[in-house]
Amino acid sequence: MEHGKPCQEAPCHSCDRFAVWYLLRGDEAEARAKAADLCLEQTVECPAAILPEGFIKDQVVGRLEALARTDGGAYRALVSFPDDVTGGELPQLLNVLYGNISLKQGFRLERVKDCFPFWSRFRGPRFGRAGLRALLGVPSRPLLSTAVKPMGLPPEQLAQLAGRFAAGGIDLVKDDHGLCNQPFATFAERAERCAEAVRKGSAQTGRQSLYAPNVTAPADELRKRADFAKRIGAGALLVCPGLTGFDAMRTLADDDTLQLPILAHPAFLGSFVTSSENGISHYALFGQMMRLAGADAVIFPHSGGRFGFSLQDCREVADGTQAPLGDLRSIFPAPGGGMSLQRIPELRAFYGNEVIFLVGGDLLRHSAEIEKNCERYRKMVDNP
Amino acid sequence: MEHGKPCQEAPCHSCDRFAVWYLLRGDEAEARAKAADLCLEQTVECPAAILPEGFIKDQVVGRLEALARTDGGAYRALVSFPDDVTGGELPQLLNVLYGNISLKQGFRLERVKDCFPFWSRFRGPRFGRAGLRALLGVPSRPLLSTAVKPMGLPPEQLAQLAGRFAAGGIDLVKDDHGLCNQPFATFAERAERCAEAVRKGSAQTGRQSLYAPNVTAPADELRKRADFAKRIGAGALLVCPGLTGFDAMRTLADDDTLQLPILAHPAFLGSFVTSSENGISHYALFGQMMRLAGADAVIFPHSGGRFGFSLQDCREVADGTQAPLGDLRSIFPAPGGGMSLQRIPELRAFYGNEVIFLVGGDLLRHSAEIEKNCERYRKMVDNP
Repeated sequence: MEHGKPCQEAPCHSCDRFAVWYLLRGDEAEARAKAADLCLEQTVECPAAILPEGFIKDQVVGRLEALARTDGGAYRALVSFPDDVTGGELPQLLNVLYGNISLKQGFRLERVKDCFPFWSRFRGPRFGRAGLRALLGVPSRPLLSTAVKPMGLPPEQLAQLAGRFAAGGIDLVKDDHGLCNQPFATFAERAERCAEAVRKGSAQTGRQSLYAPNVTAPADELRKRADFAKRIGAGALLVCPGLTGFDAMRTLADDDTLQLPILAHPAFLGSFVTSSENGISHYALFGQMMRLAGADAVIFPHSGGRFGFSLQDCREVADGTQAPLGDLRSIFPAPGGGMSLQRIPELRAFYGNEVIFLVGGDLLRHSAEIEKNCERYRKMVDNP
Repeated sequence: MEHGKPCQEAPCHSCDRFAVWYLLRGDEAEARAKAADLCLEQTVECPAAILPEGFIKDQVVGRLEALARTDGGAYRALVSFPDDVTGGELPQLLNVLYGNISLKQGFRLERVKDCFPFWSRFRGPRFGRAGLRALLGVPSRPLLSTAVKPMGLPPEQLAQLAGRFAAGGIDLVKDDHGLCNQPFATFAERAERCAEAVRKGSAQTGRQSLYAPNVTAPADELRKRADFAKRIGAGALLVCPGLTGFDAMRTLADDDTLQLPILAHPAFLGSFVTSSENGISHYALFGQMMRLAGADAVIFPHSGGRFGFSLQDCREVADGTQAPLGDLRSIFPAPGGGMSLQRIPELRAFYGNEVIFLVGGDLLRHSAEIEKNCERYRKMVDNP
């Protein structure tokens, strides 16, 4: 294998560059110009003409490794960067991947290439699919989740709901991501009551249900809320990395004193994926980046609900959650966003068993029958 | 003034809702449907049909206050939300403003409305324009800044450059935002050497030059780097809130032990502004949100450089940095992104004196003449 070139075989342990696929709009000349621009913009941020000869020009600047035409008036470019420009730090990795060029038209990050030992510099998900299954004692069926909602209910009513979901056998009972620290339901009161209710509901069924409070919070509160969640016996955490920053989520995953699985919510991240010409692919953003930032499951809107993701987008997310990436664990796709019970068979056909279903409002439609709805939900996944 | 409706006069001290302008694509029926969707999606996240009557339906859900057709096949909707849904916390404010609907097509956040005492719950910029001018001892002319670059130079060479910029009379000498903690120039060594060099250069001229190291870092390192910067006498900080999260920047601004002005860099935020139909306006993102998150100046690419912002985009940024927003301070627009010395007169005509010019690579074109280039740069703003 040629040194400094991305190798064809993975894993590779002899290179000092990592590589990234970008989609560049335009004809070949335009794509080549965009690639040359990207190589400079994502590293040295100045014209090639004023760069010193040697190390910087030869090593630091990004390098176009391959260019291939796509069907849709664009080119796919593989660009390599030296591992060292990231300093091994996630914020700077994100900056190298898509910092300045996010501000330009016609550059889309498609995926990072699994090729180098580089990705294993990041610890990634602490639990991943296998770890979360072990915590829940569910070896193979799809996992079930739901959301405690709506915002505006007092803590005791939210907790009552949470308890009924657990009693109905839901594996993961999470806060709606809009529940934060509102005066009508403060974080501490809500989380403590919900955790207790889920514990009791779980005891009724003899199954393990985990409660995931939303710990998305001001930067100087995030860790405190996660610690509080741990202390009161919450079994998981809900985090919105678009609001906290990806690396803040990573600190929770890496924290040996917490050891709680993390469900990542996509709030505020949509602008990265609403264009097919700019931004970041569903595969890279919701699959690869979420794993690099330590999520054990990624929530996203499945096609045909309240949001506009296509089936292809959803397939990309699912693929990104499990494609080889250093030795980082695979994580669960958690499709939601307006899913109903009657769509579960279709979702199961699409995702298979390695999935967390997220059905929220539909379980509440006939509130007297929440447990019955949960039971229906369970039955849909209990048979293989 | 009617209670619960946005008032026409500012400031208003009797309402408990804040209001936001969105651009919604489609005809009137589509826009009304989008507005209704937004009111639910940004708060309770479930269909109106399953909401309990009373407080939640009447108060918690967003409320369409006004709808007006625009010239371009869209409607402008004013939507109000109760102050309390934010819990007074910036991450949740961002979530209410643009969390879930970021994932849908045809919703663009245009601006938050200055109308309620609400915005003053956020401390915002510590220095703002007046405070930064006072630190620099520059009462009225445009401020000058440049970047220490390129990535890949060893600390001593970066520091030499920084010193020459200061000796040339540049007000703000900042790190290139890609300089983080690379093995070829660690944060600590680079920052310490550059701070010292800027201090010496500054002493030569008798003018005050401030060095702004890039403290963008892993979440558990950010505060340490800022503290280090303070300790070694750096006079300002460079932060990329797209990489750290907006609220992480806010914690640095709010920290009474730091008291350093903050230059915010737009890396990784471009996807919010690359579409005219989705995302967030330049006005709201680079003006209003940066102020809410404590930046004292916002860096962005001026039209006609290496990036594609239009003059109208740049005007929006500048307007957003100074439009009334509670009692938050005005901040400096810092147009850069491939600006040359010869464009300074044009930039000055466009922005006036309340601006920080950012010229990077162009000062390095003839490296023997850095001080001379800086002198030219200074002369361009010294005359009124």
